Amino acid sequence: MKKLINSAESLVADALRGLSAAHPGLRVDAENRIVFRAAGPRPGKVGLVSGGGSGHEPLHAGFVGYGMLDAACPGEIFTSPVPDQVVEAGTAVDGGAGVLHIVKNYTGDVLNFRMAAELAAEEGVTVESVLVDDDVAVRDSVHTAGRRGTGATLFVEKIAGALAETGAPLAEVARVAREVNERSRSFGVALSACTVPATGAPSFDLGEAEVELGVGIHGEPGRTRAAMRSARELVAVAVDAVCADMPVSGDVLVMLNGMGATPLVELYAAFAEAAGQLEGRGARVARSLVGNYVTSLDMQGFSVTVCRLSEELTRLWDAPVETPALRWGR
Amino acid sequence: MKKLINSAESLVADALRGLSAAHPGLRVDAENRIVFRAAGPRPGKVGLVSGGGSGHEPLHAGFVGYGMLDAACPGEIFTSPVPDQVVEAGTAVDGGAGVLHIVKNYTGDVLNFRMAAELAAEEGVTVESVLVDDDVAVRDSVHTAGRRGTGATLFVEKIAGALAETGAPLAEVARVAREVNERSRSFGVALSACTVPATGAPSFDLGEAEVELGVGIHGEPGRTRAAMRSARELVAVAVDAVCADMPVSGDVLVMLNGMGATPLVELYAAFAEAAGQLEGRGARVARSLVGNYVTSLDMQGFSVTVCRLSEELTRLWDAPVETPALRWGR
Repeated sequence: MKKLINSAESLVADALRGLSAAHPGLRVDAENRIVFRAAGPRPGKVGLVSGGGSGHEPLHAGFVGYGMLDAACPGEIFTSPVPDQVVEAGTAVDGGAGVLHIVKNYTGDVLNFRMAAELAAEEGVTVESVLVDDDVAVRDSVHTAGRRGTGATLFVEKIAGALAETGAPLAEVARVAREVNERSRSFGVALSACTVPATGAPSFDLGEAEVELGVGIHGEPGRTRAAMRSARELVAVAVDAVCADMPVSGDVLVMLNGMGATPLVELYAAFAEAAGQLEGRGARVARSLVGNYVTSLDMQGFSVTVCRLSEELTRLWDAPVETPALRWGR
Repeated sequence: MKKLINSAESLVADALRGLSAAHPGLRVDAENRIVFRAAGPRPGKVGLVSGGGSGHEPLHAGFVGYGMLDAACPGEIFTSPVPDQVVEAGTAVDGGAGVLHIVKNYTGDVLNFRMAAELAAEEGVTVESVLVDDDVAVRDSVHTAGRRGTGATLFVEKIAGALAETGAPLAEVARVAREVNERSRSFGVALSACTVPATGAPSFDLGEAEVELGVGIHGEPGRTRAAMRSARELVAVAVDAVCADMPVSGDVLVMLNGMGATPLVELYAAFAEAAGQLEGRGARVARSLVGNYVTSLDMQGFSVTVCRLSEELTRLWDAPVETPALRWGR
C-alpha cells in the first residue's frame, strides 16, 4: 500500500488544513473538525448540516457553500462523526429557523446524528432529520439496517440547500429533502477494492477477471461477485437494478459517479451507455453529473444514481450553487 | 488490467458521446473528433484551440467553454491529434481575429500542430502558437526535445482564454499565453504507473516501496526512482525542484494536481504541505486549485504547478469561466 499521507492518524486533520488553505469561502474549525461557510449563518435561513466518515470526498465538505450545506462534520476514514461535532455544527449554523440533518443510512451515523439532535434540542435548536437510503443493491448489511445511503446524498444536499436559500421553513426543506430521496435510486460496481490507510490492506479480494456488483461506498459486499465485462454490460446491470426498483419515465437527473480511481475518460464512456439505456426505457436525461463526487478512497468502479425530476426539483437543481466541488449559475 | 470500457478502440469515441450527452454547452463533432463550444465562434474574438492525446481528462475537452478554449482536439490515448483535426477546429472557430494554438511540448504534438498551422494559413486563417514546457523534471526525453508540457497548460488556457474574451488581438493573447508559461513550473511524482488500455500493462514497474520522482503525464521516466516516503517529504521534493528552477516570491497560483487515481482527501493533505512550504519560502499562495485536472489515466500520484502571478494574470485568472471542469464567477 502506498498512500500520499503523512500518517493514517493525521490524514483527516491534514486534509482539513488543505481545505482551509484552498478555499477562502470556507471556515474550518480544526479543533472540532467542522467545515463551515465562512460567511456564517443567515438569520431566518434553515441551516443544513451533513457529515459522515471521511474517504468519500468531495462529499461532504466539498459541498459546503451557498445553495448547499452550511456545515459538514467529517469523521475519521469510514467512521461516523461524533455527536458533539454535530451539535456544535448545528448550534453554530442555526439562524433561528432550525437545522436540517442530512444523514446517510449507516448505523453509526444514524445513532450519532440522533443523539446530536436530542442534545441540540436541549440547547433550544430545532432539528429535523432526513435519512438517505437510495442504494438498491442490498437490504440490511453489516453497516446498515435497511438500504444504504450513497449517491442521492448529493442530490438531497443540493436541492434542499437551494430551497433553504429561499427562506423556506424547516418543515418544507425537510419535505423536499425526503422527496428527493424517495425519487432517487443508486447502484454501484467495483472493479477493485479500496484500501483504508489505517489497515493498509484492500477491503476485499477481487480476482483479476472479477467485479463486485452492488458494492457499497466502504467496500461493503454487494449482491454478487461476477465476471468482468464491458462498460455497456456493467452499466446495464446498474441501470437494470435501479429501474427494477423504481420504474423511470419522464425527466431524470443522472449521476455517473466515479469511486475515486477510475479515469474520467472511462466515466464519460460509461455515462454515454447509461444515458442511452435510460432513454431506451423512455426516460429523458434532463440533467446530469459525470465525475468523482461520492467516492470510496482509491476504489476503481462507478455508481449510477437516478432521480425522477419534477418541475420543482428541476428548478431547485438549477438554482445557483457555489461550493468547492459543485458550482454554477452565480 | 480491468478497465471500464467497451473496447480500447472505441474508448475515445465513446467518451466523446458521453461528453456530448452530459454538456449541452458543448458541440461534439464525432466524425472529426473535435469538441466545440455549442455557441460557435464570436466575430472579432481570437479562437483558442488546444488538444493532445486522450487520457489526461479533463484536459483538454473539459476546458472548452466561455473564458477558456473554443475547441479541443483529442487524439487517441497518449497520441497526438492529426493535423486535419486541428485545421478543421481552427477554421471553424476563427471569428476573423485569428487562432491561437496551445501546444504541450511533445514531439508529435509539436509537429502536427505546426503542420496544421501551415495548412490553416493556406486557407487564410492566421495562427499563432504557444508551446507549453513547464515540467522541470527532465530536459529532453523519449517524447520531447526540451522540457515537457504538463500542468501549466491549464493556466495558459484559462488566462489566455480570459484575455481573448475581452476582444484582445491575437498578438496580445499569444503574448500573455507565453508569459504564463514562462512564469510557471511543474514537477510530478508517481506512486504507481498508469495502464494504457490498448497495451494492458503498466507503463513501468514500480516496487511496493518505491516512487518515481519527476514522472511525466504519460508514465515517462522522471529524474530518479526513490524510496516511498511521507506526503510532506514527497511534496518537498516537488516544491524544491520547482523553486530550484524558478525562485518564488510574491503572489503565486498553485495547483496540487492528482494524476487520476489518488483520493481527493490525500490531495488536500498534500496541498496543505505545498502551501506551507511555499509560504515558508516567502511566497503567498494567492490562488489555488486542488483536484484531478491534468491526469495520467489511472496513475496514483500528484504534481505541483506554481505560477508567479502579476496583477494582470491574477485579474485574468479571476475572470469568469464556464467549462465542464472549471467554472466560476458567471
